[in-house]
Amino acid sequence: MQQRQRRWNGWGWVDESAPVPASARAWLAERLGKGDALTVVAEQDVRVPPPRPLPALPATTSQASGDRLRHACGCSFPDVVKLRTGAPERFPDAVCYPESSEQVVAVLRSAAEAGVAVIPRGGGTSVVGGVTVTAGSGPTLVLALDRLRGLASLDRASLLAVFRAGTLGPEVEAALGPCGLRLGHEPQSFEFSSVGGWIATRSAGHRSTGVGRIDDLVAGVDVATPEGMWRLPAQPASAAGPELRRLVVGSEGRLGVITEATLRVQPLPEHRDGLAVLVPSWSAGGEVCRTLLQRGPVPEVVRLSDPDETGFGVALTELPGLAARARDLVFGVKRFRHGCLLLLEWAGGLQEVSLARQTAAAAWRDAGGISLGRTGWRRWLAERFRHPYLRDVLLTAGWGIDTLETAACWSSLALLHGAVRDSIAAAARNAGFPVAVLCHVSHAYRDGASLYFTFLWPLRRDAEISQWQALKNAASGAILDHGGTITHHHGVGTMHAPYLEREIGTEGVAALRTLAAALDPHGVLNPGVLLSRTPDPGPRSPGGGEEG
Amino acid sequence: MQQRQRRWNGWGWVDESAPVPASARAWLAERLGKGDALTVVAEQDVRVPPPRPLPALPATTSQASGDRLRHACGCSFPDVVKLRTGAPERFPDAVCYPESSEQVVAVLRSAAEAGVAVIPRGGGTSVVGGVTVTAGSGPTLVLALDRLRGLASLDRASLLAVFRAGTLGPEVEAALGPCGLRLGHEPQSFEFSSVGGWIATRSAGHRSTGVGRIDDLVAGVDVATPEGMWRLPAQPASAAGPELRRLVVGSEGRLGVITEATLRVQPLPEHRDGLAVLVPSWSAGGEVCRTLLQRGPVPEVVRLSDPDETGFGVALTELPGLAARARDLVFGVKRFRHGCLLLLEWAGGLQEVSLARQTAAAAWRDAGGISLGRTGWRRWLAERFRHPYLRDVLLTAGWGIDTLETAACWSSLALLHGAVRDSIAAAARNAGFPVAVLCHVSHAYRDGASLYFTFLWPLRRDAEISQWQALKNAASGAILDHGGTITHHHGVGTMHAPYLEREIGTEGVAALRTLAAALDPHGVLNPGVLLSRTPDPGPRSPGGGEEG
Repeated sequence: MQQRQRRWNGWGWVDESAPVPASARAWLAERLGKGDALTVVAEQDVRVPPPRPLPALPATTSQASGDRLRHACGCSFPDVVKLRTGAPERFPDAVCYPESSEQVVAVLRSAAEAGVAVIPRGGGTSVVGGVTVTAGSGPTLVLALDRLRGLASLDRASLLAVFRAGTLGPEVEAALGPCGLRLGHEPQSFEFSSVGGWIATRSAGHRSTGVGRIDDLVAGVDVATPEGMWRLPAQPASAAGPELRRLVVGSEGRLGVITEATLRVQPLPEHRDGLAVLVPSWSAGGEVCRTLLQRGPVPEVVRLSDPDETGFGVALTELPGLAARARDLVFGVKRFRHGCLLLLEWAGGLQEVSLARQTAAAAWRDAGGISLGRTGWRRWLAERFRHPYLRDVLLTAGWGIDTLETAACWSSLALLHGAVRDSIAAAARNAGFPVAVLCHVSHAYRDGASLYFTFLWPLRRDAEISQWQALKNAASGAILDHGGTITHHHGVGTMHAPYLEREIGTEGVAALRTLAAALDPHGVLNPGVLLSRTPDPGPRSPGGGEEG
Repeated sequence: MQQRQRRWNGWGWVDESAPVPASARAWLAERLGKGDALTVVAEQDVRVPPPRPLPALPATTSQASGDRLRHACGCSFPDVVKLRTGAPERFPDAVCYPESSEQVVAVLRSAAEAGVAVIPRGGGTSVVGGVTVTAGSGPTLVLALDRLRGLASLDRASLLAVFRAGTLGPEVEAALGPCGLRLGHEPQSFEFSSVGGWIATRSAGHRSTGVGRIDDLVAGVDVATPEGMWRLPAQPASAAGPELRRLVVGSEGRLGVITEATLRVQPLPEHRDGLAVLVPSWSAGGEVCRTLLQRGPVPEVVRLSDPDETGFGVALTELPGLAARARDLVFGVKRFRHGCLLLLEWAGGLQEVSLARQTAAAAWRDAGGISLGRTGWRRWLAERFRHPYLRDVLLTAGWGIDTLETAACWSSLALLHGAVRDSIAAAARNAGFPVAVLCHVSHAYRDGASLYFTFLWPLRRDAEISQWQALKNAASGAILDHGGTITHHHGVGTMHAPYLEREIGTEGVAALRTLAAALDPHGVLNPGVLLSRTPDPGPRSPGGGEEG
């Protein structure tokens, strides 16, 4: 099989895209009007300045302009705008490809000695600036984990699989499938993101409601630091002090480079079933989700779109004549004027799945919902990894689009949903442009759920990033004001770092800074990510930071 | 109701005990011979030296000898031997009873300024030296959380309950029960241990296989430090950096004093069922447990005794004539010569429980097991909190008894079980006395299980603690040599602190020391617990410690 190429200035494969039917374009044009199409600069026209000198590194290293451009940033909205317009501000001075944990340690040691900043990089899909070279660092090295790949060992009795950090989602499942096993961790970035990246960013996947977040799946982890390997072996459970594996999960490269992890896998489910349900309102849908999570059995997938997202989803989905007529009929019923689409999926033994589906049916019927059958669920399953391609198509059509996510307790969720929508709308109004805000519950827990917002607006030439920033700032403030977490599964990166202190307290930030200083005394690991470059002032912040 | 009194020199209530029938005494005498009964000194005969001077403290404080004696230590084997023989080495200089988080901060601040060591204390049931005043500290204060008690608030929609740290197990369930809710966290110490203690020691309960460990139940936590309150509010999930709540869980008072926690509660189960099963061998029983955990539905309780523990259990249980004859008949079958008792319990909806029991029946039948009906399970439910009283009775009869626990992956479990038994037996042989070692799986996970060992030996006068120490050292070494964790749910305390580095690495210990220094810069919080007083030497250990 020929190797597929990844886009250098947008999402995913060069030969893949997301269709935006006329109905969706009309939906957007009606609400947002027309914006300025974002220009696209050719790869060879991007000026990549010569690299700064680096010490000799004990692993394969490239200073080619192409490599440096393709490792300059991740996939955030500003990243992509800068790439497409040929305007990235910074480039790494080299990209290094270690082939073993020992090489990673050796590279980190050299970098620490020479004061070279190191950005560890798995699939490079960060949407929060987690792998973006930023101002303020001296010479910078991207440590690409592409060559640390594959299944290292499998303990079938314990259902534990050791994967090297650079292993991508499809490779994980391809290695496990023939053994009748799966990991089941399927974030939106599944095709391009890696085991190490999932752990570093505390990721969640489409099936995490049932399978658990990556937090729950890490049984053991190996971390390379400039001082050597830190190995936390696989353990089912322990009371030997705080769970340090959970400190590595979400550390975003600041405490070391994850080189290998022991993951909890499970038998492939015997049976799988799912369907789409239409519920009369956002609050009714929320009650269905809450009931399912609190009473059980818990579905593997729970996705509830709000009325606006449900509407946009309808506009995005071209159906053949008869099916479209049937859909219009159902959505035309008065009760479903603010109807919300709910996707549910169950996995397990045949009896178990059947019992779970029955229980769920009782819950959605109590809430006034009706089943739309399996078609919508199957379509989502088939198309879910294509959604991120939408951004590239819409940018070309003159519309900006970004997503952000949060989570809160059930009792705060309705207020949080309204507040984030309102704050984004107000920020757009103040800046003089329209905006559409869509939302869905993407992950549910016994005590709460996540909210995943998508916002769209008409682009103004050369103001794309400042438009986005105004909306993003408004949403971030509203989230923290209303009991939400600043990120449910995208991570902190550089983008959310300034908000971290409001969420985890001065003491929390001080604790993380202290830890980073202990494990990375030269402060070369991913500076500016997770913890802002400038320590937040305040009477209780720690003394001096190691960061440059 | 009159307040029941707790024993000052042993387990539990003064008016409660555990019967040891003649059959159990015979079982022990046959294997261990007769030891020297441990003397009991009267409370008023223990010499409590005058307290060292302390600064004035901003909360109710007692320097009465009785209070100081009753707060000198926990419930470990050496603690109890020293109390019974009137020989505790150290006493706190005062016991302080703060009534609010703010008072806790104020007391910590005063203590930090004056260099007074502070031992936070919930129920005082630590069996690993977590609340024992030890040599090496200067003036020492016990911070008793008895007055921080009760349910502070309840969010019914989110199933979140805020409890003050000093709330004891029965009070937690008494507050939730009338609302149709439960926490379900039931460690052996349930009647006497507290919310704060559970969190600080990373506790697990009898039902944790189904309900989750305390790690999973903490949604939010408030921690008092000498610098102020550190509040981590309730969150269903987040990717905002590492989960710092998990850093507080298991911190054993070294990072601050837990004053309040938001716990994930659940509806009282509609239905509950359980039974005892006899399986032909330890390995067959292990396979049944593994199958149930990996294929599901997961029982709420899983307890599998090895042949020796099953035998001692039989000797401990007096049955009426006919029942005893029936039991002898079953245990007399050749297939069950090395038979192991397996207790299972399920909770949930009627259908759910019935399906789970059916699935489990298939698994135990495949393994050659037979159901013994509900009686054994009901007896365990009724008597489980009485087991710790056994120690006091046996000490008086001349036998030493202690327990220790570990956990490992399924693939390591058989070897680990053998190694710990062998090492304890070898240590006893070397020291010239017999020993009996019993074991059960007390908690099971998809990837492994815990092993809970009980060891008994004949006491030698004035050598009780050195006998115990020889056995404990042997077991601890074997555990770490064979992939076990040094503790599954008792915690680290002072007893396991020297082993922590082997388990979590130099980097792990350095990380914890650094954190403790950041949150408690004067090093007054529970010195010697979790992290040994003397930093372990080595090229990669951190520079200077704050500890005295």
